[in-house]
Formats: sequence, C-alpha cells, structure tokens
Amino acid sequence: MEKIIEIIGKTPLKDFIPQKYTNRLKILNLSSGEYFHYSEKELNSTFFLIEGMIQIKQTTQDGVDLNYILLDNFNVVGEKKLLFGKEGGVDFYTIRDKTKILEIPLDIGIKLIKNDKFKIFLLKLHCEKLHKFVWDISILHFKGVKKFLAHNILTYSTDDKFRFKNMSFLSEILSIDRKSLYSAVKKLEEKKLIIRENKIIKILDRKKLEEYIKI
Amino acid sequence: MEKIIEIIGKTPLKDFIPQKYTNRLKILNLSSGEYFHYSEKELNSTFFLIEGMIQIKQTTQDGVDLNYILLDNFNVVGEKKLLFGKEGGVDFYTIRDKTKILEIPLDIGIKLIKNDKFKIFLLKLHCEKLHKFVWDISILHFKGVKKFLAHNILTYSTDDKFRFKNMSFLSEILSIDRKSLYSAVKKLEEKKLIIRENKIIKILDRKKLEEYIKI
Repeated sequence: MEKIIEIIGKTPLKDFIPQKYTNRLKILNLSSGEYFHYSEKELNSTFFLIEGMIQIKQTTQDGVDLNYILLDNFNVVGEKKLLFGKEGGVDFYTIRDKTKILEIPLDIGIKLIKNDKFKIFLLKLHCEKLHKFVWDISILHFKGVKKFLAHNILTYSTDDKFRFKNMSFLSEILSIDRKSLYSAVKKLEEKKLIIRENKIIKILDRKKLEEYIKI
Repeated sequence: MEKIIEIIGKTPLKDFIPQKYTNRLKILNLSSGEYFHYSEKELNSTFFLIEGMIQIKQTTQDGVDLNYILLDNFNVVGEKKLLFGKEGGVDFYTIRDKTKILEIPLDIGIKLIKNDKFKIFLLKLHCEKLHKFVWDISILHFKGVKKFLAHNILTYSTDDKFRFKNMSFLSEILSIDRKSLYSAVKKLEEKKLIIRENKIIKILDRKKLEEYIKI
C-alpha cells in the first residue's frame, strides 16, 4: 500500500501539511456509488480528491438541488466549512471505481487554515470549482439540455470515449430527466456528432461537437 | 466633496491601502446607465462599489451571456484579473443614480495583492459574489421566471417597494425577456403577492412572497 506521505507528496498539499499530522489523516479507497459524507451527518472532515471521480449534491435551505461533478482532477470538498464556517446540507459520493480520497479531520483543517498560504490555496480551489459550476449551469440554462450533454461528453471523455454505468445513472449525475437525456442523445446521433454503443458514447467528430456548443 | 481617504475609511479597504497610494485612486460619481468599463477595452483597474448599484455583463468566449447584479453593498468588480490573471469580456455599468465607485489602477492593485491578507480579503469578496450568482441562477433555472422575479423583488426592495426605471430596463437587468416578465408580474399580482404601480412594485405580503419561492 502506498504510504500517505507519498500520496500527499504527489499533490500540491505537500507544501502545507507538516509531517506531524500525517498519522491523523486517512486514505479512502472507494468504489463507484459510495457516499463518504451525507447531508444528515455533521461534517467533520475536509476531503481531497486524489484519483477517481466524485459528485457533490447540495440541497439549499429551501430545497433547490445543485449538482456539480468533479473529475479525476485534484480537488477538494467540504472546504466551505473551513473557509466560511458552514457547509450546508451536502452529499458527497463517488461516481467512478478506484476513487482515492484523502480525509483531513476538522481539527487539523482548522490548524492548517491558520497558514495564510494554505487559506489562499484553498480559496483558489474553491473558486475554481465555482467557476466550473457557473460555466456548467450557464450552458444548461442558456443553451439547453443537448448542448449541456455535448459539453459533458467533451469534458469527461477519454480518447473520445465517454463511459457511463447506465442511462439512469447518467441521468442522475447530470441532473437531466431520463426522457430529455434519451432525446438529447438521439439528436446528437442524428447530427452524426456521437454514436452510443451500450455504455459508451463515442465522439465521431470532436471539432464539430465543440462547434455545436458554440452556435 | 468627501475626501478619498474618508471614503476608504468607511470601508474594509482601510486596512489594506497605504496612504501613499491614495492620490493615485479615483472616485467615480455616476448616474444610472453609465458604463465604467466595457468589454472591448483593456481592463486596467479594479473597481470597488461604495454606494449605489451596478451590474456586470459577462460574455464568455463562445457567447453565453451571464449577468449578475450587485446591490448597494460594498463589493468589487474587475478583481478576477488581479486574482486569476484574466477577466474575460465584461461590461460594468451602473443601474442606479448616485452610484459611487472607487477606482484602483492595475499597477497599485498588483502591489496591494502581494499582501496575503488583502489577497484573502479579495478572494472572499469574489466567492461571495459567486455564491450569490450560483444561488440566483439556480432559482432561475430550477424554479423558473416567476420565482426568480419574486426573489429579486425581495432582495432589492426597500421598505417593501421595488423601484425600477421602466419594464424594458427591468427586463434587461434581470435577463428575462419582456413577455415572460410581464406575464410573471401579472401572475404574482393575481396571487395577491405584489401590486405594480407604474415604476414601483409593492410587496403586499412579504412572508407569503418568501414562502412562494420555497414551494
């Protein structure tokens, strides 16, 4: 098993976490679909995504669902509590197998955040996530479901292949109802931009798909 | 005329701007509808809203319009260039008479941002704006135009009165087309939540209007 200190060493966290704390940190190795925090629980950790893919589901005080997806990029969830004192009701769960997460207990997070450099680092990660969310929801709202789907296929594909567990799972993580999702996939197929083969959507022409979102 | 140093003294900026820079700063006293930055121009300043109301219109690289409104609260625009190196194409304009803005030239901004405390302060203001935008667009997208209008009336009213120049101006600043706006106002009137009298929308029952958004 890889040691925590080696895992941290490969991330930007290496500049901020003193060695004396490493024995208090945890590595979570999770499969797809595992909740590592749910809204009914008190949030007592900050989680750094090392590998894999996770989703945040946030329900605001009056029941508006906000979803955003984080890819296999290094990122953080639960940091709002450290930065702004509260996180709100949030679920964190994995949406890819072999997801690796570093869990930092709240009391250590509180110590780390006293370092202004770490606070700036965390604020910038938080902004990065918000910029991404603003961009995603703007495409969904102003351009509609088909272009939002196209945008997600482009963002989350590897070698022009976008893999997903099944259509209802895809519908859930993109917050698109199944009927609209089926219809959007069909429309993109008709336009010869993609082709769906069971649990894989293949991009037929990446350039054309990018152009399609812009129109 | 109020001195710049007195104006700064009433804002959180007083902890960050050394006196030696104050003669390089400008106060803009603007009427409603004035552009103090437009997207075709190079952005060479950071602007702090001291009094009044301004709007940002942001057009992303592929033409998605994003709007957000800032009220008479102290806030900042143009800070993205200082924080993240670029701002993108943005228009900044006033939407209320007697709007007072503090303009800080870019070279001074660059000096100020070297202070980590100021950087944290600016990042937090930036996050505050993004949280507000995420919340606004989530209401618009997930709850629809009528509830979005109700939300804006609640947010920007004084003494239960929401004043606006005219309907087409309101349509523009809320990014709602005129037909939908008229229809939304009518619906809220029918529900006896508001009443429109020319350029004023009066809230008839604040509690009920708040409840209406939550359903």
